[in-house]
Amino acid sequence: MLGSTHGTFTTDLRARVVACGESPRTAVHGVTAAPGDQDVSGRPLHALVPDLDRFFRPESVAVIGASDTEGRPNTGITRQLLAWAERVGARLVPVHPTRTSVFGIDCVPTVGALAEPVDLAVLLVADPLPVIEELAEAKVRFAVAFASGFAETGEAGAEAQERLAEAVRRSGLRLLGPNTNLNAFERFREDLDGPAVALITQSGHQGRPVFTLQELGVRLSHWAPTGNEADLETADFISYFAGRPEVGAIACYVEGLKDGRSFLLAADRAARQGVPVVAVKVGRTETGARTAASHTGKLTGADRVVDAAMRQFGVIRVDGLDQLQDTATLLARARRPLADGVVVYSISGGTGAHFADLATAAGLELPTLPQAKQDELHQWIPEYLSVSNPVDNGGHPVGDWRGRKIIDAILADPSVGVLICPITGPFPPMSDKLAQDLADAAEATDKLVCVIWGSPVGTEDAYRSTLLGSSRLATFRTFGNCIGAVKAYLDHHRFTAGYRSPFDEAPRTPSPSFRKAQALMRPGRRLSEHAAKQLLRAYGIRVPREQLVTSAAAAVRAAGLVGYPVVMKASGAQLAHKTELGLVKVGLTSASQVRDAYRELTDIARFESIDLDGVLVCQMVGRGVEMVVGVTRDDLFGPTVTVGLGGVLVEVLNDTAVRVPPFDEHEARSMLAELRGRALLDGVRGAPPADVDALVEVVLRVQRMALELDGDLAELDINPLMVLPRGQGAVALDALAVCR
Amino acid sequence: MLGSTHGTFTTDLRARVVACGESPRTAVHGVTAAPGDQDVSGRPLHALVPDLDRFFRPESVAVIGASDTEGRPNTGITRQLLAWAERVGARLVPVHPTRTSVFGIDCVPTVGALAEPVDLAVLLVADPLPVIEELAEAKVRFAVAFASGFAETGEAGAEAQERLAEAVRRSGLRLLGPNTNLNAFERFREDLDGPAVALITQSGHQGRPVFTLQELGVRLSHWAPTGNEADLETADFISYFAGRPEVGAIACYVEGLKDGRSFLLAADRAARQGVPVVAVKVGRTETGARTAASHTGKLTGADRVVDAAMRQFGVIRVDGLDQLQDTATLLARARRPLADGVVVYSISGGTGAHFADLATAAGLELPTLPQAKQDELHQWIPEYLSVSNPVDNGGHPVGDWRGRKIIDAILADPSVGVLICPITGPFPPMSDKLAQDLADAAEATDKLVCVIWGSPVGTEDAYRSTLLGSSRLATFRTFGNCIGAVKAYLDHHRFTAGYRSPFDEAPRTPSPSFRKAQALMRPGRRLSEHAAKQLLRAYGIRVPREQLVTSAAAAVRAAGLVGYPVVMKASGAQLAHKTELGLVKVGLTSASQVRDAYRELTDIARFESIDLDGVLVCQMVGRGVEMVVGVTRDDLFGPTVTVGLGGVLVEVLNDTAVRVPPFDEHEARSMLAELRGRALLDGVRGAPPADVDALVEVVLRVQRMALELDGDLAELDINPLMVLPRGQGAVALDALAVCR
Repeated sequence: MLGSTHGTFTTDLRARVVACGESPRTAVHGVTAAPGDQDVSGRPLHALVPDLDRFFRPESVAVIGASDTEGRPNTGITRQLLAWAERVGARLVPVHPTRTSVFGIDCVPTVGALAEPVDLAVLLVADPLPVIEELAEAKVRFAVAFASGFAETGEAGAEAQERLAEAVRRSGLRLLGPNTNLNAFERFREDLDGPAVALITQSGHQGRPVFTLQELGVRLSHWAPTGNEADLETADFISYFAGRPEVGAIACYVEGLKDGRSFLLAADRAARQGVPVVAVKVGRTETGARTAASHTGKLTGADRVVDAAMRQFGVIRVDGLDQLQDTATLLARARRPLADGVVVYSISGGTGAHFADLATAAGLELPTLPQAKQDELHQWIPEYLSVSNPVDNGGHPVGDWRGRKIIDAILADPSVGVLICPITGPFPPMSDKLAQDLADAAEATDKLVCVIWGSPVGTEDAYRSTLLGSSRLATFRTFGNCIGAVKAYLDHHRFTAGYRSPFDEAPRTPSPSFRKAQALMRPGRRLSEHAAKQLLRAYGIRVPREQLVTSAAAAVRAAGLVGYPVVMKASGAQLAHKTELGLVKVGLTSASQVRDAYRELTDIARFESIDLDGVLVCQMVGRGVEMVVGVTRDDLFGPTVTVGLGGVLVEVLNDTAVRVPPFDEHEARSMLAELRGRALLDGVRGAPPADVDALVEVVLRVQRMALELDGDLAELDINPLMVLPRGQGAVALDALAVCR
Repeated sequence: MLGSTHGTFTTDLRARVVACGESPRTAVHGVTAAPGDQDVSGRPLHALVPDLDRFFRPESVAVIGASDTEGRPNTGITRQLLAWAERVGARLVPVHPTRTSVFGIDCVPTVGALAEPVDLAVLLVADPLPVIEELAEAKVRFAVAFASGFAETGEAGAEAQERLAEAVRRSGLRLLGPNTNLNAFERFREDLDGPAVALITQSGHQGRPVFTLQELGVRLSHWAPTGNEADLETADFISYFAGRPEVGAIACYVEGLKDGRSFLLAADRAARQGVPVVAVKVGRTETGARTAASHTGKLTGADRVVDAAMRQFGVIRVDGLDQLQDTATLLARARRPLADGVVVYSISGGTGAHFADLATAAGLELPTLPQAKQDELHQWIPEYLSVSNPVDNGGHPVGDWRGRKIIDAILADPSVGVLICPITGPFPPMSDKLAQDLADAAEATDKLVCVIWGSPVGTEDAYRSTLLGSSRLATFRTFGNCIGAVKAYLDHHRFTAGYRSPFDEAPRTPSPSFRKAQALMRPGRRLSEHAAKQLLRAYGIRVPREQLVTSAAAAVRAAGLVGYPVVMKASGAQLAHKTELGLVKVGLTSASQVRDAYRELTDIARFESIDLDGVLVCQMVGRGVEMVVGVTRDDLFGPTVTVGLGGVLVEVLNDTAVRVPPFDEHEARSMLAELRGRALLDGVRGAPPADVDALVEVVLRVQRMALELDGDLAELDINPLMVLPRGQGAVALDALAVCR
């Protein structure tokens, strides 16, 4: 099913021409784009997919600054490039103003002197900027700039990088770097087959462990060391790799994102293609974010927003490079799960208990095997051992013909999608045979078979040869990494199976509300409560009936229209903490109370020197659950939508969930499921269940506002939104809006 | 300082004679105990410390059921025991009713026929029970029972185990097992020195990875496979190992605890001795708990209580066997930290940023190095690289003489206690030299030097020889395990430095409150709100002024005495959910309101068929922060004390902290620090800070009740406890008490 979607989608995407937000690219090599394909906020709706075939497999390569003088850094690089060019079958042309040949190959003095257009130019010069224009004239398609000293060094470097980026945009060529290295041109093992891992890193050293996996038999297809990303960025490589047939999973090491939207579009493309993206993203803490910024000069973004955005688009975030390796390898190699059930199989009841404990704590499902299956297993396993799941064989059966029978019998059960066998202690008479049986069984099944080799030594034959020798087995060294990877595997397939791109449904044109709303905006200013509520009303969000009045008599008239009992509040654009200041009066039931309240509110305001634009006389709204819904701007992603518990709790617990638009109703509901206090919405202590549908509708309308008013709205905060009992809706009792 | 405490304490402890709760042991080999050294609840106050020297290093061993007939399981075991006896220099005596010799050693037909008392008897018989008495008569000190089929198999097995345990108690010998194995008698490497890891496991297979660490150069001193723990339990081995000079850390794999108190006393002893205990404890989930119970037949206990108890007594809980290995090894080997500061040193800015991010997220402190130190480092490290911490050397300096200088300069800074160098990619020209410099520097410093060898291959020379070859270096394979272990290391030393045993301060005799309280208890019944509050009052916990009345006229009189405004509540022993039923009236300001309220409350009760013992007329208490404080019983630990946020929140968020008595005021305060909503106590939105001292005092008084009334009180729940503004105290507005 997904297969056919791929086909259609890929064609669509390549036929489309996409404009890229602020810096539209034209005549970009290998990218087809259509102007106008953007959402109502002006953000693009499809990933730009660069065709990087000739970058990774060029027919001709020019090396600008090539050298063969021993002891010079460029000499080592030139030598490595020569070896690489030979391996990939590319012609290498050294470019040097004074040399006639390098390593016996004739030099040309300048880029302009190249006899024919080359696919790739490697820039070994300290300042790549002056070369860019020459390269463009020579119709070079791709360039790599090794030089450092750009955005990673501070403000002056950032400006130099921007000049470089601008030159690249004008040129039409695509640039990798600056501040990158030779990783893309390393020696990849060609003898491994099956689905490969493609690697993208913003630090060469941090990519090395994944690259080194090849020594353990894991196929690696590409390595893109993106450096400072003046042009080509992580997102470009994700988009490109997601379309390569040999790529089974994409592993990323990300310190900062160049652009939030392009990352999401790339993740969206990968999700549509069903290609998993596993990422380490630095920036969990301030320290990490600061240190990362000083390394590649990129923003890390607010971590909880990055985290939410990744989950929205199915990017699997992990913390450690070991988890990156294990998860990406498993996801690249394993076939689609045939069931969600996990069976733990071990030679020790203790091992089974421990593993099952951690696995269920992580959310894996360990179904109890049917009685008939247990009876079958008891043909080979002593009756006193438990085989319900975990299956404990007590040790001995693995040593003989029964070992394989047990494994096959477990795998044959339809509830079982994954079999996990933790071998914590190597005991060759048992563990060698067990490893071989598992490897053999893995070859013969479409289901996932995982092994944990728990010995800290790791030089044992059963591990090195039998287990690592099988690309059908998923082999781990720790319970934790196995559980994390299997969870990611099942989650990924559940996610992609149900994936509908929110970009397909994103609004492209303003709604009728937009014009009404725009008329209310006051650039650079904060709106009064009344105006902010008008804004909400324009987008169909319920607010109490209310009138703004400037006299006690008008207040009494307004109360009559609004209907008793009423609430009265001082109103003014600069007014915060109304309740604390005594500027809210609730439950007023008569004209005289309204008159008194008016006098009192205006007295307090005078006393506190607060400018009022009047007093609001508002309808009293029934009891419900107080929530907050808001819009905040993120450096990387632009407007984000937040929902959380309201009242004093929101301050104390910060129990909120955030999403990056565009997102759909399903995602809006998942925000509520994330809240620790979500049970409040179901009704506790006899309270009726709240109108969750109305709350979700408000979240979606606020998203629409965030998108349509992207250029006008700096911040929006509905607090509280009173969510009434089911069927009765939700009403914004107070609101704050700040214009850009 | 701690050293001298050790000495004193050890002496004290051995001089003391301790009674053991329900099953007092007398004439136990090597254990000295004094009756009466118990707290007010009757629980012991000191660990029983068995002298197991002769268990691990016996002079003579009898093997009951020895065999040399090829193909029989007992033959393999006998052979292994022979080899072991030879290694430890013990005489081995085979015992067999019909054989004359086994492996050329003369047999005796029965235990009674042993020529002299032996230290250790290994029971290779299916039913160890009949042998126990003979062993006792023969003055055998220790026995090991391999047989399975006891508590791990269900009820009948549990009964058989209890009979065995009873026979052992009568006999005076100490038994390991049943359902254990040969792990204690394996071949330990004798060529390793320095502080060792001692291992305790309830599953042989699960202990194997720690044992195998010896192949990586980690010294292991003991392995106690405790099996079903009919007699000797995990706690006994912790207590014993904590006193052994060669033991640097104790690693445990625990599926269930036999007795909560003995575990805490053992942990307390280890904490006093400064010996770290690192434990995997199965039972995070129901599945894990159930599976573990079916493996060794032990209770896992409520996991959050186990978790809290471990933290209280400094036991470091980890989830994975890999973490158990890494943390125990580090804690065994590393010296006391000279500072808490951690410096990250790397050849790559990316690696430093990533590691720093994860380390700070885990709570490690990465101090910024002083400018003078940074200047010093910049002698060897290019100026454009950041050396503030993380220290990024850019790669090249590690290849020459500068490498060692940099490491030494970092270690010389007084703010630095730990240097961590993550080597994610092996590049022999750099990483071999770096590894050697780190190993050399580690030999020359008292500070902790950690390395992460990030290559997934792990067969590299620099790793196998240089890094693992140094017992002064702490070598890891993942960032996560290094960070976890270093955090545990710093936390452990902070914990033991400030450790004061709560057992020293635990109450031994009832307070004057006890007699008053006991008079109020109604065995097997739930007390009325009024009686429960009397109970609190007996322990000096404030309750509102209140009177229980049975007529409207009496209510009016009571209101006059209590003082207006008053609260009125229906009162009855079986009454719950008073508020929901409308059985609470607040803010009554006049005699007529009181009369009306009395009528209304009794009407509702009649209508709802609720038996009342009257109506409570209570003082209105001012506004504050609503908390809950309570006592619940745990299967393993007995009474536990809980504190949390009150009101509807406590139900929704379950924001509570729990502790196992005895604990001190400092620990009570740490409970509040654990609450997610703790900021409420500081005062939010202009509310005054709450009287935290009064809250802590209530928690401590409730602990006292829990201990003194241990035999009488099943459950206590103060909800809400109104904590008034600072200086004004805390008042229990409602309480529930259930008697045992």
